Amino acid sequence: MTKQNVSLSVIRRMPRYYRFLEALKDSGIVRISSKELAARMGLTASQIRQDFNCFGGFGQQGYGYNVPELYEAIGKIIGINAPKGVILLGLGNLGQTIAANINFPSMGFELLGIFDISAEKTGRRFAGVGVYHTDELAEFCRKYSPEAAFLCLPSEVAPRTLDELVALGINSFWNFSHCDLTVSHPGIVAENVHLGDSLMTLRFRMG
Amino acid sequence: MTKQNVSLSVIRRMPRYYRFLEALKDSGIVRISSKELAARMGLTASQIRQDFNCFGGFGQQGYGYNVPELYEAIGKIIGINAPKGVILLGLGNLGQTIAANINFPSMGFELLGIFDISAEKTGRRFAGVGVYHTDELAEFCRKYSPEAAFLCLPSEVAPRTLDELVALGINSFWNFSHCDLTVSHPGIVAENVHLGDSLMTLRFRMG
Repeated sequence: MTKQNVSLSVIRRMPRYYRFLEALKDSGIVRISSKELAARMGLTASQIRQDFNCFGGFGQQGYGYNVPELYEAIGKIIGINAPKGVILLGLGNLGQTIAANINFPSMGFELLGIFDISAEKTGRRFAGVGVYHTDELAEFCRKYSPEAAFLCLPSEVAPRTLDELVALGINSFWNFSHCDLTVSHPGIVAENVHLGDSLMTLRFRMG
Repeated sequence: MTKQNVSLSVIRRMPRYYRFLEALKDSGIVRISSKELAARMGLTASQIRQDFNCFGGFGQQGYGYNVPELYEAIGKIIGINAPKGVILLGLGNLGQTIAANINFPSMGFELLGIFDISAEKTGRRFAGVGVYHTDELAEFCRKYSPEAAFLCLPSEVAPRTLDELVALGINSFWNFSHCDLTVSHPGIVAENVHLGDSLMTLRFRMG
């Protein structure tokens, strides 16, 4: 099965496997059965085997999984070893937190630059990269060809910036803005972190 | 149909309806057909009608929806009008960003207090509430009875803190820590914002 044919629900579980395997590896565990891994993750062993079978399967019947090997294999499936160049737009509170606290290389990305519309914020360095004015976006993209953008922008400006980024050849987005990118641009890849939606879902579920 | 019987996928769409209706209301639109709302949201009209039917339905055949009424009705379904008391744990970069930038009352919550283990951070005010040392947690909970906690903690300390909070009667969590709360506490309500998982999912989908 190719990467493109795997369902989004399986895809969304892969980072979680990766996270659990990293913790197991770090605690020195070398081998684990699908049953034991399932118990730790709150899944069933059959679910885990099914998920892994989407990528050809990794275990050996009756032996279990080799933790460091499985960790590396899932990392490769995600693409950790082949980082994509990314720019971050919007150096407000959220943008600063994201830029300063997330270990991009360990998640398959290389931060190339940060953009903001405020002249006060630009012309310096933050989180190890340059902070540029949004006016320099087109030139920067031609020079460094980022493949993804992290949008930490107010929802009012996000749609306009999205149009510009798509025209510059960027079609993958990690989106913190309260807008739904794929409605206007169905061809792009977008992972949304809608904090407000998540919080209201919690409120609903509290009854 | 009671709130408890509605599927999680329908529930997760309600904040998104609320967000779209707010934008419509703010731009002065009073009436909208399910077809028009569907087009704006990238859904189908039949999906929207099905979702709303879970709560008794709101439209009138051939008339469409009254935007301000529907906005208010969905707000009530979510629980915006009946805020729950909440505490935030962990005043690092992320905790500060969350506390300072999210309008809790507009999402059905009232922030009662913030907790941190660092003595330097405690004893002052932040985002309009007091910052307390984690040692004061039990006393504070007895006094103010928060019903939810926002966990902005490092993953190492999150499980221990969770045990303590559950023992203090809190069973609803907005979780930014890289740990899966419901594996150890299946009875709680947890909305997870796993930024790393989301980012790795984006990397995977980029091929």
